[in-house]
Amino acid sequence: MVDQTNSLTQSQPGLAVCLTPALLPLYKVEDYVVVVIDIFRATTSICYGIENGAEAIIPVSQVEECAAYREKGLSYLLAAERDGQVVAGFDFGNSPFSYTADKVAGKTVVLTTTNGTHALHLSRSAKQIVLGSFLNLTALCNWLKDQHENILLVCSGWKNNFNLEDTLFAGAIVEQLKGSVHRTDDPAIAANDLYQLAKNDLAGYLSKTSHSERLKQLGIEKDIAFCLNVDLTTAIPVLLGEKLVKLSV
Amino acid sequence: MVDQTNSLTQSQPGLAVCLTPALLPLYKVEDYVVVVIDIFRATTSICYGIENGAEAIIPVSQVEECAAYREKGLSYLLAAERDGQVVAGFDFGNSPFSYTADKVAGKTVVLTTTNGTHALHLSRSAKQIVLGSFLNLTALCNWLKDQHENILLVCSGWKNNFNLEDTLFAGAIVEQLKGSVHRTDDPAIAANDLYQLAKNDLAGYLSKTSHSERLKQLGIEKDIAFCLNVDLTTAIPVLLGEKLVKLSV
Repeated sequence: MVDQTNSLTQSQPGLAVCLTPALLPLYKVEDYVVVVIDIFRATTSICYGIENGAEAIIPVSQVEECAAYREKGLSYLLAAERDGQVVAGFDFGNSPFSYTADKVAGKTVVLTTTNGTHALHLSRSAKQIVLGSFLNLTALCNWLKDQHENILLVCSGWKNNFNLEDTLFAGAIVEQLKGSVHRTDDPAIAANDLYQLAKNDLAGYLSKTSHSERLKQLGIEKDIAFCLNVDLTTAIPVLLGEKLVKLSV
Repeated sequence: MVDQTNSLTQSQPGLAVCLTPALLPLYKVEDYVVVVIDIFRATTSICYGIENGAEAIIPVSQVEECAAYREKGLSYLLAAERDGQVVAGFDFGNSPFSYTADKVAGKTVVLTTTNGTHALHLSRSAKQIVLGSFLNLTALCNWLKDQHENILLVCSGWKNNFNLEDTLFAGAIVEQLKGSVHRTDDPAIAANDLYQLAKNDLAGYLSKTSHSERLKQLGIEKDIAFCLNVDLTTAIPVLLGEKLVKLSV
């Protein structure tokens, strides 16, 4: 029983990593700028869509919530999939390849995502909520360095548990913010060390995880490879009300 | 939103790591043999005490609960400390050096430990609950290999959050059980990779954590060094009712 501090105090601005949304109640979220992370595939697709001119992206949990937007007007594009297939009646699924400029520019997309929406919802008292993915890593980190605020990286995980891909990305942010933050917590140290192991071959590292076989079965290996592209984009999605829009920097 | 499975199913006996007690509700605990881990210092002191002939060790959360045992008879030794000091009126604190044969042989010790007791309590529906520390690592792993059961390693963590020392030890168990289990989950992969990084210099690795300065201030660096001794003991504490006793193997 040794005292230690995983959470950061306001007097010592720093960088903390929340490994799953289930651990968010341990943090005083209102003291932080929060980065929500859901690498496979929600925050990657959203970063790509916002980069490609989507006016807004609205994340929802349920296919039914998504479908309800159909009645609100034709300007909404509805994205929903189950088991790797686009749900009948919807415009497209969650593949980042659906978020190209020719499809989303000027449109508002309603995206069904369970883990990411859950993390966003639980983070809603934060000073500000932005989204991160390998696609916008450096642009995001440069912006974070300028904030001079406590930063909390929230991994969406899988069904409230830890997953490797979100943790690796948190570790990539920790790496870039070294020297710009005063303190990190144990989860941040762990995330960064795992990223060091994985960074030269993210796909290879993740192929040893328990779900790699399932990804193959879903036929979304191309999506996964795309989600591991670093610095393909510079736009930072920010939550305004219920909508994710492009942050003005 | 990609499906993956962090939890293990009964049809695929395997090894899972629960990174903090806050994540225990995600596991069907009754399907597992559980190993509770609280390296600094509860499970280390308990392993050492049981090895050294303590008849039983009773973990409690509060100093007051511990004190209540005074009225039950003089055969109890009461261990409680706050901020690194033995609480007035108690026999000793939580240092493993208090659990030597000359002090504990034949005695029942009531030990105050917040994180470890919390983890034990939440694991109580498990098939069996044993305790692990670096002290009994190999003996514990040899026993686990013989069980042919799903195994869940429960890190006590710090105030329900992730800590490095418990995770490293979980990774040390994963290392020894490779080849004996069918599946591991993402937390087990992460724990094992962190252990690989740390194993040649556990103390050096842990010195970079956020709480190393606090440990120095508490003056318990000798305790910490002792807690990182590997295979000093062979006894395995097992929970029977409210008491931890030596497992008959």
